[in-house]
Amino acid sequence: MEANSAEAKHLLAFIERIERLEEDKKQVSEDIKDVYAEAKGTGYDVKVIRKVVSIRKQDKDKRREEEEILGLYLAALGMAE
Amino acid sequence: MEANSAEAKHLLAFIERIERLEEDKKQVSEDIKDVYAEAKGTGYDVKVIRKVVSIRKQDKDKRREEEEILGLYLAALGMAE
Amino acid sequence: MEANSAEAKHLLAFIERIERLEEDKKQVSEDIKDVYAEAKGTGYDVKVIRKVVSIRKQDKDKRREEEEILGLYLAALGMAE
Amino acid sequence: MEANSAEAKHLLAFIERIERLEEDKKQVSEDIKDVYAEAKGTGYDVKVIRKVVSIRKQDKDKRREEEEILGLYLAALGMAE
Repeated sequence: MEANSAEAKHLLAFIERIERLEEDKKQVSEDIKDVYAEAKGTGYDVKVIRKVVSIRKQDKDKRREEEEILGLYLAALGMAE
Repeated sequence: MEANSAEAKHLLAFIERIERLEEDKKQVSEDIKDVYAEAKGTGYDVKVIRKVVSIRKQDKDKRREEEEILGLYLAALGMAE
Repeated sequence: MEANSAEAKHLLAFIERIERLEEDKKQVSEDIKDVYAEAKGTGYDVKVIRKVVSIRKQDKDKRREEEEILGLYLAALGMAE
Repeated sequence: MEANSAEAKHLLAFIERIERLEEDKKQVSEDIKDVYAEAKGTGYDVKVIRKVVSIRKQDKDKRREEEEILGLYLAALGMAE
């Protein structure tokens, strides 16, 4: 594959597209960190906000079922609250 | 660094120690997977067992505090169960 | 924190911002996967393209130095190509 | 599932086995870190040792093929050393 050949330019185009997208991904990750930092600065508990975000992704029934089983297991282990 | 020199042997010794330990680590990971598979085969919910294992690592007071804040946030978002 | 209170709305705003950004991040990750799939479909070796992308992030001198040390170690271990 | 029932004891047994294995895994990870620290203390380049460890896991022919393609791509991009 000769330098500056059509094929080399084609390869470079793929690489540059990947690099731009990776840059976008890095920027979005930083934006997410900034929002958490802002929430923390406002007094919210970031770890709990992460839990809420993850709960909101879950199917409600599935989550309820898991919570019930968790309660059962914790009670069986003498760990129920 | 000549091949078979004392230094080369010293380097190889480090590498072989790391390789043996990585092999051990791989084996332990497989053992953990086996226990979860066994528990699943017995009818337990593996995802919930993972949660119990993680809860048992947590400081009790810290966990209680987080659960309370989570309850507050979920109620505020109309998501309380 | 009462449901629908100003504070609850403030919390929800943070959560929705995080969710939108996580959605953007997921989309960019999928776009990256698509470009690699397109490159693969064109006949390029995806694993090697990943290596090129990672090499292009590295400081040239640092990379040269590492390659030299790697060559030394591989030769000392009788693994030089 | 009653606390202290046979089933509860069975569940606890699974959990304790997982916890012991996770402890073993943590210990092995620390041992690996120690070996790398020892190698570093002796003057070896830890990042390069990691590369050697990973190369030794690779199939020789596969690795040679990848190195050739990498050389091709780097030359095509004017990055050959």
